[in-house]
Amino acid sequence: MATKIILDCDPGHDDAIALLLAHGSEEIELVAVTTVHGNQTIEKVTRNALAVARIAGITGVPFAAGSHRPLVRAAEVAESIHGESGLDGPVLPEPTLRVDERHAVDLIIDTVMAAEPGTITLVPTGALTNIALAVRTEPRIAGRVKEVVLMGGGYHVGNWSAASEFNIAIDPEAAHIVFNESWKLTMVGLDLTHQALATPDVVARIAAIGTGPARFVVELLEFFGQTYRETQGFEFPPVHDPCAVALVIDPSVMTVVKVPLDVELTGTLTLGMTVADFRAPAPADCTTHTATDLDHDRFWALIVDALERIGDVEL
Amino acid sequence: MATKIILDCDPGHDDAIALLLAHGSEEIELVAVTTVHGNQTIEKVTRNALAVARIAGITGVPFAAGSHRPLVRAAEVAESIHGESGLDGPVLPEPTLRVDERHAVDLIIDTVMAAEPGTITLVPTGALTNIALAVRTEPRIAGRVKEVVLMGGGYHVGNWSAASEFNIAIDPEAAHIVFNESWKLTMVGLDLTHQALATPDVVARIAAIGTGPARFVVELLEFFGQTYRETQGFEFPPVHDPCAVALVIDPSVMTVVKVPLDVELTGTLTLGMTVADFRAPAPADCTTHTATDLDHDRFWALIVDALERIGDVEL
Amino acid sequence: MATKIILDCDPGHDDAIALLLAHGSEEIELVAVTTVHGNQTIEKVTRNALAVARIAGITGVPFAAGSHRPLVRAAEVAESIHGESGLDGPVLPEPTLRVDERHAVDLIIDTVMAAEPGTITLVPTGALTNIALAVRTEPRIAGRVKEVVLMGGGYHVGNWSAASEFNIAIDPEAAHIVFNESWKLTMVGLDLTHQALATPDVVARIAAIGTGPARFVVELLEFFGQTYRETQGFEFPPVHDPCAVALVIDPSVMTVVKVPLDVELTGTLTLGMTVADFRAPAPADCTTHTATDLDHDRFWALIVDALERIGDVEL
Amino acid sequence: MATKIILDCDPGHDDAIALLLAHGSEEIELVAVTTVHGNQTIEKVTRNALAVARIAGITGVPFAAGSHRPLVRAAEVAESIHGESGLDGPVLPEPTLRVDERHAVDLIIDTVMAAEPGTITLVPTGALTNIALAVRTEPRIAGRVKEVVLMGGGYHVGNWSAASEFNIAIDPEAAHIVFNESWKLTMVGLDLTHQALATPDVVARIAAIGTGPARFVVELLEFFGQTYRETQGFEFPPVHDPCAVALVIDPSVMTVVKVPLDVELTGTLTLGMTVADFRAPAPADCTTHTATDLDHDRFWALIVDALERIGDVEL
Repeated sequence: MATKIILDCDPGHDDAIALLLAHGSEEIELVAVTTVHGNQTIEKVTRNALAVARIAGITGVPFAAGSHRPLVRAAEVAESIHGESGLDGPVLPEPTLRVDERHAVDLIIDTVMAAEPGTITLVPTGALTNIALAVRTEPRIAGRVKEVVLMGGGYHVGNWSAASEFNIAIDPEAAHIVFNESWKLTMVGLDLTHQALATPDVVARIAAIGTGPARFVVELLEFFGQTYRETQGFEFPPVHDPCAVALVIDPSVMTVVKVPLDVELTGTLTLGMTVADFRAPAPADCTTHTATDLDHDRFWALIVDALERIGDVEL
Repeated sequence: MATKIILDCDPGHDDAIALLLAHGSEEIELVAVTTVHGNQTIEKVTRNALAVARIAGITGVPFAAGSHRPLVRAAEVAESIHGESGLDGPVLPEPTLRVDERHAVDLIIDTVMAAEPGTITLVPTGALTNIALAVRTEPRIAGRVKEVVLMGGGYHVGNWSAASEFNIAIDPEAAHIVFNESWKLTMVGLDLTHQALATPDVVARIAAIGTGPARFVVELLEFFGQTYRETQGFEFPPVHDPCAVALVIDPSVMTVVKVPLDVELTGTLTLGMTVADFRAPAPADCTTHTATDLDHDRFWALIVDALERIGDVEL
Repeated sequence: MATKIILDCDPGHDDAIALLLAHGSEEIELVAVTTVHGNQTIEKVTRNALAVARIAGITGVPFAAGSHRPLVRAAEVAESIHGESGLDGPVLPEPTLRVDERHAVDLIIDTVMAAEPGTITLVPTGALTNIALAVRTEPRIAGRVKEVVLMGGGYHVGNWSAASEFNIAIDPEAAHIVFNESWKLTMVGLDLTHQALATPDVVARIAAIGTGPARFVVELLEFFGQTYRETQGFEFPPVHDPCAVALVIDPSVMTVVKVPLDVELTGTLTLGMTVADFRAPAPADCTTHTATDLDHDRFWALIVDALERIGDVEL
Repeated sequence: MATKIILDCDPGHDDAIALLLAHGSEEIELVAVTTVHGNQTIEKVTRNALAVARIAGITGVPFAAGSHRPLVRAAEVAESIHGESGLDGPVLPEPTLRVDERHAVDLIIDTVMAAEPGTITLVPTGALTNIALAVRTEPRIAGRVKEVVLMGGGYHVGNWSAASEFNIAIDPEAAHIVFNESWKLTMVGLDLTHQALATPDVVARIAAIGTGPARFVVELLEFFGQTYRETQGFEFPPVHDPCAVALVIDPSVMTVVKVPLDVELTGTLTLGMTVADFRAPAPADCTTHTATDLDHDRFWALIVDALERIGDVEL
């Protein structure tokens, strides 16, 4: 049976691919898409999400806009990576879906509380502001979601600073809330996603699919690859967000270990670092996990498979 | 015309008196009462609020329970001051009002968004968790409330630590959010409330009213006076929370100055301190204010007047 | 019998007056002068100290240069207050004294260890870098000095930030070391020194003395008064550093209370704040004190008296 | 030509082996040994250093005691690892060397300033308190030492906390000073030293040497192995401090990379973490380096070789 997920995202190039992967996979039922400030402003990422929905042919799924800023800190965006629109590169169509009237936080709460306990997986691929607000306003969701599988953080690797990753660093207080809740949480962080490189052979395989959505992914990867090359010195771009979705689809796509995780809130050099304690085996009541090693081939096969299943979409 | 207020409180002895003052004043229309963790657990302070409503004869006002814990930090309660129930001392009646089904955060948002812009004053007298969650989930309330008049903090005086006051110290991140929002905010802090001492002559005047609510206040002051004497070395107890309500009723009851205020989030000795910058005149765009000097007689006259107006209430 | 002091300073206009006060007082025996980075670079403040020595006719006292930078933080200077030279305003003579070959830290240690226990008072009027290094390198001085009487900090008043004073803020780690040592320490902070204003009548009295050193002080106060007026909005300049020397000369010149003091090292808004805990009477083993109220007339009488005793000095 | 080193240590089992390695190597000339609080109190580690000197037959080298506590923080010792004496396990002889009268800080300064510039390598294997005090009291040593090769820290591995190593964590301010100085610095941290395991075959090879010093090392490794097994879950103990000495003897014994390093001073979870920024190639003016990969065989061959060269020592 397909796993019901709420994808909480800030498209963003890799978020867009994550959305396509979730939509195209047989193992996932996308029950809601919510947006959050991050790669760009909430207005831009919400518009991008709706545009991707049109490209992917997603219908019947509520899309709700969420937090326009972090809980405590001033807002930051990742324009150097995702461009002025948050999804620079491809020409985007006008969205046809209408955004849900509810705030993302309310949609998350409503969806989780209305579903059978233990059936909804939260998949955040942006800042954790919405998720934090939801669980603080309705604490019962902590006991009702199946688990949280998020893209963000990193136990040994940073990108926004030497020790912190962008999604966590831009709202560390929200991350602290989410990481310390009672739910099962798996961090798919930079240690993992820097293995998910869009190498030329991968791009070629996607291009060969020949559909509109596949062409869109190729265009995303071209832009993303260029900014990663120019600003971060990567030969090929790491495709972060789909990794979290991939783990929901197929747990064998990566190695996951149980380890105490927490978020640094006061460090000068380490603000927003996701600190993992590998010194001893995780205690029995530890609820946090981290992905460590990716099966690169299997991962990209999931992407290709999803795009093939989506097929061509009439715009 | 009476000022519409939402009282966000954690009764609490002085919160209870604040509720009586708001209810008994002609200058205030109590449009909602919301509760928040703090002096005791959310369950206890909510039950206390409803019991006070019965004692005061409050009807037709929604009471909603709110956050059970701070945004980020672990919960703390002030049992040494308010006792095991949060309102130790008087015998409390069974509440007759039913708690509103909505979460306090939703009631705050709904009430502010439904009212005419600029008509609702928020009066928080506990931790600022609910207010912070409300303005982050629905940012438009920042532009729609008339102002925020809160009891909490202190520019030179602390109680929970040398530099911090309880309401701010137990949820400093929430306080940081509320103090840094765009609304007009007035801090009625310890510098002011330590002037609002329930001296024997004041207690005698209240006792002389002879009604049930007045007797209730006397019993509150007796318990509160004792714990303040024993744990903090006060000769007479400072009655904090009614000061914020009093400022809404009658601005001439205290001196208020405009000054930049912010909340310390990372200090080792100063976590939760409300830092005021008195070095230069406040800039024109400064939205924060602090109360400095209380007119003691006028303040207690407001309390007596409210209790007289409430009169006797049939339990 | 005169009290032996080591004046550790960063002249600096008010440091210069402190040096004249110490030299001119019968109650003080100046056994060493050490310099420290602060109001200007170590080279400049050392040259200034030697120039003041010539103006005041100080001979037979070792002057040693000390730390050129704070323990941990990057160096900052107070050029907006003291000008490019650190002693802008008066024309300074070429120094005739030669600087001691020893480092200030070594001179402090040697002087304290060579003297009878309990006879040397340390009077720091700049950053506490030298004193911190001395007591960490030779811990025995903590038990051998009579006491530390320092200008710096403030329990309710800041100048370098809303909550911190310059001398402490520029080397908070050094201040933390000094405030937490076992010696008796008295903080003469901004709460006190902002009462030591060089009002026009005071300046007139000093001018009336008619000697070279008095004229020098008048020129210092004119420059200092102007920068304080322009950058900090003071009508008359507060003359900080001589207050610490004045307390050594005559304890009745100000009120001093015992109170726990500590230095904030991690605050975002409060870094370098000297936090006083006034919530309860200081415990018996408390070694820290703070000055609170100045006898303005008596203070300036000490200055005038010292200048009269110095008389005219041949340059 | 042999490299002149000052070994600044807190013996400590692995410090003792480091001292033997330095003494027994032809590539090293031990010009001074200084001690510092850490594994045990300054009194104990100093006595241990002198006892090891006797066991190793070290004469003609000054041994000076240094700081008894960290710069700012309260002192901590590692009794769970090194036992009550700091060198539990072997029976120690009475020292015959007398401790130098100078403070370690003075001995370091004197030694560096008296030597030809660029000829002295500092090898700290404990807290960095002495080195920090030395360079702050005599800044010229920063330009006169050849380099600093220290055992401490770790870029991905912690032991005292999830993110910090003991030597750095117990005096992070001192470490911050040392890591940010202008000298060339190489961190031999836990990432490297956890590769330097005293496996049974290694212990057997040392035992086979059959001399007193070799037996002493075997006894050290037995005790150290047991505490590491019991308190940290290691199968075989990591022998940290000799790694720093080994790098001075033979740079080919480990891989070293240039990378910006700094020390976290304010983190809640990360206090004392040595943060490495691997995101981009180190800038040209970067002076910090870290060891990454150890040649295990070559490392232990150096130890065996040194012990053989020391031979038997008459006690």
